Amino acid sequence: MSLLPRLKLPCLAWMRDYDRDTLAGDLVAAAIVTIMLIPQSLAYALLAGVPAEMGLYATMLPLVTYALLGTSRTLSVGPVAVISLMTATAVGDVVATTGADYISATIALALLSGLILMAMGLLRFGFLVNFLSHPVVAGFITASAIIIALGQFRHLLGVDAQGDTVLELGASLGAAVADTNNVTLALGLLALGMLLLARRLQPLLQAWGLGPRMADLLCKASPVLVVFLTTALAWRFSLQDSGVALVGAVPRGLPVLRIPALDPLLWRELADSALLIAIIGYVESVSVGKTLAAKRRQRIDADQELIGLGAANVTSALSGGIPVTGGFSRSVVNYDAGAVTPAASLFAAGGMALAALLLTPLLYFLPKATLAAVIIVAVVGLVDFSHLRRAWGYSRGDFAAIATTLVLTLVAGVEVGVLCGVFASLALHLYETSRPHMAVVGEVPGTEHFRNVERHQVITHRGIVSLRVDESLYFANASYIEDAIYTLVSRDPCLRHVVLMCPAVNAIDLSALEVLEEVNERLQEAGISLHLSEVKGPVMDCLNKTDFLKRLSGEVFLSQHQAIASLSCSQPAQSRTLISAF
Amino acid sequence: MSLLPRLKLPCLAWMRDYDRDTLAGDLVAAAIVTIMLIPQSLAYALLAGVPAEMGLYATMLPLVTYALLGTSRTLSVGPVAVISLMTATAVGDVVATTGADYISATIALALLSGLILMAMGLLRFGFLVNFLSHPVVAGFITASAIIIALGQFRHLLGVDAQGDTVLELGASLGAAVADTNNVTLALGLLALGMLLLARRLQPLLQAWGLGPRMADLLCKASPVLVVFLTTALAWRFSLQDSGVALVGAVPRGLPVLRIPALDPLLWRELADSALLIAIIGYVESVSVGKTLAAKRRQRIDADQELIGLGAANVTSALSGGIPVTGGFSRSVVNYDAGAVTPAASLFAAGGMALAALLLTPLLYFLPKATLAAVIIVAVVGLVDFSHLRRAWGYSRGDFAAIATTLVLTLVAGVEVGVLCGVFASLALHLYETSRPHMAVVGEVPGTEHFRNVERHQVITHRGIVSLRVDESLYFANASYIEDAIYTLVSRDPCLRHVVLMCPAVNAIDLSALEVLEEVNERLQEAGISLHLSEVKGPVMDCLNKTDFLKRLSGEVFLSQHQAIASLSCSQPAQSRTLISAF
Repeated sequence: MSLLPRLKLPCLAWMRDYDRDTLAGDLVAAAIVTIMLIPQSLAYALLAGVPAEMGLYATMLPLVTYALLGTSRTLSVGPVAVISLMTATAVGDVVATTGADYISATIALALLSGLILMAMGLLRFGFLVNFLSHPVVAGFITASAIIIALGQFRHLLGVDAQGDTVLELGASLGAAVADTNNVTLALGLLALGMLLLARRLQPLLQAWGLGPRMADLLCKASPVLVVFLTTALAWRFSLQDSGVALVGAVPRGLPVLRIPALDPLLWRELADSALLIAIIGYVESVSVGKTLAAKRRQRIDADQELIGLGAANVTSALSGGIPVTGGFSRSVVNYDAGAVTPAASLFAAGGMALAALLLTPLLYFLPKATLAAVIIVAVVGLVDFSHLRRAWGYSRGDFAAIATTLVLTLVAGVEVGVLCGVFASLALHLYETSRPHMAVVGEVPGTEHFRNVERHQVITHRGIVSLRVDESLYFANASYIEDAIYTLVSRDPCLRHVVLMCPAVNAIDLSALEVLEEVNERLQEAGISLHLSEVKGPVMDCLNKTDFLKRLSGEVFLSQHQAIASLSCSQPAQSRTLISAF
Repeated sequence: MSLLPRLKLPCLAWMRDYDRDTLAGDLVAAAIVTIMLIPQSLAYALLAGVPAEMGLYATMLPLVTYALLGTSRTLSVGPVAVISLMTATAVGDVVATTGADYISATIALALLSGLILMAMGLLRFGFLVNFLSHPVVAGFITASAIIIALGQFRHLLGVDAQGDTVLELGASLGAAVADTNNVTLALGLLALGMLLLARRLQPLLQAWGLGPRMADLLCKASPVLVVFLTTALAWRFSLQDSGVALVGAVPRGLPVLRIPALDPLLWRELADSALLIAIIGYVESVSVGKTLAAKRRQRIDADQELIGLGAANVTSALSGGIPVTGGFSRSVVNYDAGAVTPAASLFAAGGMALAALLLTPLLYFLPKATLAAVIIVAVVGLVDFSHLRRAWGYSRGDFAAIATTLVLTLVAGVEVGVLCGVFASLALHLYETSRPHMAVVGEVPGTEHFRNVERHQVITHRGIVSLRVDESLYFANASYIEDAIYTLVSRDPCLRHVVLMCPAVNAIDLSALEVLEEVNERLQEAGISLHLSEVKGPVMDCLNKTDFLKRLSGEVFLSQHQAIASLSCSQPAQSRTLISAF
């Protein structure tokens, strides 16, 4: 039942109450997003290594599909930098090994990752993405941004250079730098300079008397203005004759829907990359979607998001586009510009359709160096080493996860980097829970509280040792805890009672239960009783299903205080000792 | 420093106090273990697919080495069934792919797994074996025993049959059963019958007036008696002429020490299997070692055990033997027979050396069917489905881990089975901690205790919700908990305070911290304060390293009772409501 496809249309909810105020907000947001999307969609197609129109095609049907099926009200779906980089890497590899057609492989990749996302949504496998930790994502995004920016230098210099890692790119660029085309470089630096300047222009424009809204709009439109300016320069001075690479002929009009070629061999080669792109795209998208939804007390449905994003990728493939996801910067712009409902995305899709119908002839003279500048400016903001510093101060494990992902992504490529990052973060987590914090505890004088004997001056009783385990008991730490108990026992020949204090034990698995049974038996043979205290309800429910509690040589106490009160009475009267160390 | 080789000689401890009483116990135990080892070492060599003498050679130097370097006082090291099966599988595969020599590959495998064990010990990587859970080991041992027993049917029937899985073995035996050699079968069934009978003979012998010790010794010696009897039959009636397969010529004398061929290609092919054999062997050995040590309040040093077992395998390889480990049944026999120190193993090694010098000529007529019967009787006791039933009753996760390992080992072989089992148990553990138990809690009337509102009649306050999370917060469950908080918030428009009750939160990693920061900020924007209560010392230490507590919109309360007392006062007076459901 729960496995059956759930055909939900989240759009029905917002369409019902749609009114004129909402329309105004959505229209303004759509206009601004469209202006951002035009250069970005072309640039990210270039980054993915495919003709510019494939970027445009990925901004129409996918936006409509997500608007109807997605649960975020303000997410802006379309081509994004990191996914385009991953696409270029994956398709490049497959083309090199199988000789497949580059464009067909890109479309197949979009289709495949869309189908994977939809399948994950229908099977409710969305929880899988939880295993991609923040440190891994942070390290991955920073490293990807560096690779992307470095990769664009070839367009700025007007040279040939290839590579999936910083090492390859660095070597390739170093070898090619002598062939730099100076006109291209000048044009690229001009575009880069204007884009960087525009980011700092807003206060200046406001100082000149423009309204803050107008100033903001002008800054957001700066990439379009730079595109127009450099295109005009290239056209006016016939810069292609000076060796400046241009976008060239872009087919005019809307995409034609076409079922992509179903090539099983190609699919098998692309499957791993498609899964990775699906997961990374989903994580990026859902994190921004959640943030924006929470601001308005709205909710994101993770499984429905998978279906929405998956369908967006499938329709991108059907219309000949590249893989898409919810982009961070455009979604924030969409939200800030006043988008209230996904209708804003419907209007933006309409805007992009108009652009494809009217503006494509103008794109012939658009220099690739301009698009490279647009990409560099877009990704430079993603490079963020503060995560590294922060993780270093917080925990070595998190730092190791970021550093592993960052370094391996840079030197071994995006796929190796993210996979090793996930593996490292899981391994570190398991390692830490396999050596849990444990403390021998004693009673804080005059209270019913029990604290670590190493940290506090507490009362302990001869013949009784109380051990608090700060972790669930499971196979990976069971023998570590067993060792700790046997060590305590072997140190004190007078020992009569061991109390295991369990307020932080959230579960006991079968391996740990067997170890406890073994410990109980061994201690009993040595004349020592094993007791439990402060066992949680769900854990007690589990233990009650077995005969462990019947065979337990000691008792189960509701509180540690009761345990000590009861056991210290039953002991022959002995002086209380104040000990200060384990 | 801690990475430097630590050359410890644990034997110095027991040698110092060695006395006549100890000697007596050790000598008796050595005699009994030697009697068990003679047929078992031959049989497990047969199981590993190598000449019988390689089993004998694995029972001399390895025992001496472990006695000097190991930390268990009563562990009996030598060839064991499961490791011999794994050896046969691994070497069979490598010989098939590389065309290597079978005997050289077996010796190389012993050397390699010995070196791996020693390296793990020196690098203190012993913790790795903790990730092999009890359910995985239980499923693996049962499945291996079934494969081993089924594999021996070819010797009982006197036919050719091959296979690493029950499917292959079943098909192969089915095809060959028509060629059954009836004399071999009769001899095999005779041996099997006598061995099974001997297991039930002890009470009978005691009833006939034998002392319990003598009766027990006779039963333990039954395999040797069966070996002698069937060998005598084969010699007297020249059974080889009837097609009965015999062990044949076994070189007389002690093994010659030889440095094994160092073939890098062979080593690379064997590396994965050697690692698996090292880990499985270590787990089997250390679990019995721990059990026996605990009975006498002794301790096992995990890292030194790795070194001891590793050195035992290296010396087995140097003397031309097969991989070894601490066997369960022989160790228990050794302990029960009165062994006090590893000197028992030194004496047993001497006994085996005598056997190799004196008895080998007699082995020529030993029928392979007899050894098959010895193996079958030895492993039948390992087949244990009670684990499955027990796990089913205890937890579905543990059941899934056993069933996965059991089924995959049977149908896909030992290596696939154990690897998938480890993977499944880790994945299930991570899955469960990624969806932790959470409870909205309220105050039990008249107490300072807080309990789940769904399980108990408790008092809650309008505008305040308290959520207890029963798990450490880490990347895999951070967004699950975030979702739970947002769901609570979106349900109650009057909400003013969210209290996160953390008595079971043993750690908060960076991902979870970032989620808490995000939640704090979003709730603040919505006019809701986030509070924490009952945060543990180590977690508080971590949080204090960041500015999270400064930015927290609410407070950190030492106890949940304080939190509610303080927050319900600051709220405008409202009626207390008794609610019964989440």
